[in-house]
Amino acid sequence: MKFNNNFQLLGNNINIGKNVKIGDRTIIYDNVQVGDDTIIANDCIIGEPLHNYYYNDNYINPETKIGESSLIRSHAIIYAGSTFGNELQTGHRITILPDSKIGHNCSIGTLCDIQGDIEIGNYCRLHSNIHVGQKSIIKNYVFIYPFVIFTNDPTPPSDDWLGVTVDEYTQIGAGSILMPGIKIGKNCLIGAGSVVSKDFNDFSLVMGNPGRRIGDVKKIKSRKKDGFHYPWMYNFERGMPWKGIGYDEWLKKKNYGD
Amino acid sequence: MKFNNNFQLLGNNINIGKNVKIGDRTIIYDNVQVGDDTIIANDCIIGEPLHNYYYNDNYINPETKIGESSLIRSHAIIYAGSTFGNELQTGHRITILPDSKIGHNCSIGTLCDIQGDIEIGNYCRLHSNIHVGQKSIIKNYVFIYPFVIFTNDPTPPSDDWLGVTVDEYTQIGAGSILMPGIKIGKNCLIGAGSVVSKDFNDFSLVMGNPGRRIGDVKKIKSRKKDGFHYPWMYNFERGMPWKGIGYDEWLKKKNYGD
Amino acid sequence: MKFNNNFQLLGNNINIGKNVKIGDRTIIYDNVQVGDDTIIANDCIIGEPLHNYYYNDNYINPETKIGESSLIRSHAIIYAGSTFGNELQTGHRITILPDSKIGHNCSIGTLCDIQGDIEIGNYCRLHSNIHVGQKSIIKNYVFIYPFVIFTNDPTPPSDDWLGVTVDEYTQIGAGSILMPGIKIGKNCLIGAGSVVSKDFNDFSLVMGNPGRRIGDVKKIKSRKKDGFHYPWMYNFERGMPWKGIGYDEWLKKKNYGD
Repeated sequence: MKFNNNFQLLGNNINIGKNVKIGDRTIIYDNVQVGDDTIIANDCIIGEPLHNYYYNDNYINPETKIGESSLIRSHAIIYAGSTFGNELQTGHRITILPDSKIGHNCSIGTLCDIQGDIEIGNYCRLHSNIHVGQKSIIKNYVFIYPFVIFTNDPTPPSDDWLGVTVDEYTQIGAGSILMPGIKIGKNCLIGAGSVVSKDFNDFSLVMGNPGRRIGDVKKIKSRKKDGFHYPWMYNFERGMPWKGIGYDEWLKKKNYGD
Repeated sequence: MKFNNNFQLLGNNINIGKNVKIGDRTIIYDNVQVGDDTIIANDCIIGEPLHNYYYNDNYINPETKIGESSLIRSHAIIYAGSTFGNELQTGHRITILPDSKIGHNCSIGTLCDIQGDIEIGNYCRLHSNIHVGQKSIIKNYVFIYPFVIFTNDPTPPSDDWLGVTVDEYTQIGAGSILMPGIKIGKNCLIGAGSVVSKDFNDFSLVMGNPGRRIGDVKKIKSRKKDGFHYPWMYNFERGMPWKGIGYDEWLKKKNYGD
Repeated sequence: MKFNNNFQLLGNNINIGKNVKIGDRTIIYDNVQVGDDTIIANDCIIGEPLHNYYYNDNYINPETKIGESSLIRSHAIIYAGSTFGNELQTGHRITILPDSKIGHNCSIGTLCDIQGDIEIGNYCRLHSNIHVGQKSIIKNYVFIYPFVIFTNDPTPPSDDWLGVTVDEYTQIGAGSILMPGIKIGKNCLIGAGSVVSKDFNDFSLVMGNPGRRIGDVKKIKSRKKDGFHYPWMYNFERGMPWKGIGYDEWLKKKNYGD
């Protein structure tokens, strides 16, 4: 077993919930809260101190909140000052900078690099090696595939950053680059390798460099049945809150109060 | 020396060959076999347990086989359930998920992220930071350059994955994206930054987004001699089995049984 | 505090300056020099030995020089044989291969992978996850954004590498790919996602795949004032040597000997 109680709690005001497991050599700094039933694997750093820590003796570490029933895989570096909802799952070697607000039931893949000062909703899935620039806003049920880049500076270098906003249910294909300040609507599909430099409405199918709207996702056929694949919520339920009851039923329940 | 016998063999049925060196803090889990003369540097995890390990007391770790005369550089994470031929060389911080079948004399560069359920032949070279999605098939003597992405889902999200197939001797340029289910023939050259969304025949030179066949690789001049660079096996032998004897001689030996 | 004197100095001729802090589990090999007031965080490897180290008992580690007042964040792997000027700042998990010559006041972001045999000037900023191929030359005051790739082989595979050269003040947007041997002039802006396959003159605004000159950067309006954003040195001074005095004044001082 990798859980030998060979980890370090460095400093004060560390609050570890019930039934939490922490792997070898993992370090937890000041002012970190870990919810019940969470597993943090080996070699992680939780509450990594900010730059000032190295130079200011009066440095105070911002609060970090890890939710319940989460699994943080090895070698994660999570800076102080971020909050995560319950049931987070991560890959290995993620890096999350301060002031990241991440909802519940999210997954964040191996090597993701979240630059801080961002918001991610609930039930979002970030696959491997995604770069989320500061000021990005990712709403609920958004899936993002490997090597996508969220940029934020239209006139580099500057200190006037404009974040990207991606609305609910949208899928961002691998290797896409989202240009500063753009807004992508709900239920879009951004094809792999797109460079998205303007706003797109709900249900847009976008491809190319520069990215162009080449159709309506609702016209993409299913590969498994007669009919269409999008809105995908009718054809995919793994890990989603409508699992077992279907999207429509879940929506009804949700709209009439859970 | 970094080999201080300060590593951990966790659990049972670990079979370490002769003259193997293992670096500090490296962890080896159940059911791992390491061939003779192999070096595993510091801070690696070999046989990383699958998700169930954390939640099921009766979890059994799948078998992992590392070959002989291999060099695995520091911070590798190799999940249980993969097999590697002899003379593997890796960079740092590779991540290899379960059910990866990797041949002999391969190199896998720093930060490569191999998602599991894939096959890689012999004498393949994966440069840095390559993402190999599930269901990918990479045949012998294929070279892949940094940041290439093998995708697998034509209608994301879904659970119906279609892997990419790359045939022998093909070169995939840096930053290329290979779309789900495509087949790339033998001896192709995919230019850097291509988005390859359809099949290509042997000897195709492909470029652009979307990738188009812009010529025959056999017409690309050599930069060092009169004549042509491709098929490259006549002009490059470092680390290849035809080293010292030439490609034609090696082919003859191979075909008549060596 | 993460500085518990729980690090390892392995071998001989290690020269640590005054007031240096070194984090837990960091390993420093033979022939490394660290300048005064530098901080090296936890789990770093400084002076990582070359391939021969594993196989040759008479191996001698090349010299490595880390400057003064630098901050190297956790999990850096810096091979033996590189030199860094003062006031280096790094992110986490950088990998730097041998024979990298890096000037002063540079920053190198999380997950950057510098392949060695390269030169980087002073006051350069490499954001996250940049791949710098061998033979690359990056001059002073160049900023490079995430996931940029510097390639070097026009006819892969070969051993005849042609490095990319990027001249002073140029900005290379996220996800761009720079093809082997190209030269980019001073004060250019390469838009995100460009595939740059030919040379460009000073002040070029370049975009697309393949990258084309679509204008003069001097015509890009400022977003904060009347007038223009480029040359950017008149509108950005954070961390730059002209901070507080302005670019013109600094140039005068510099030219007349400071």
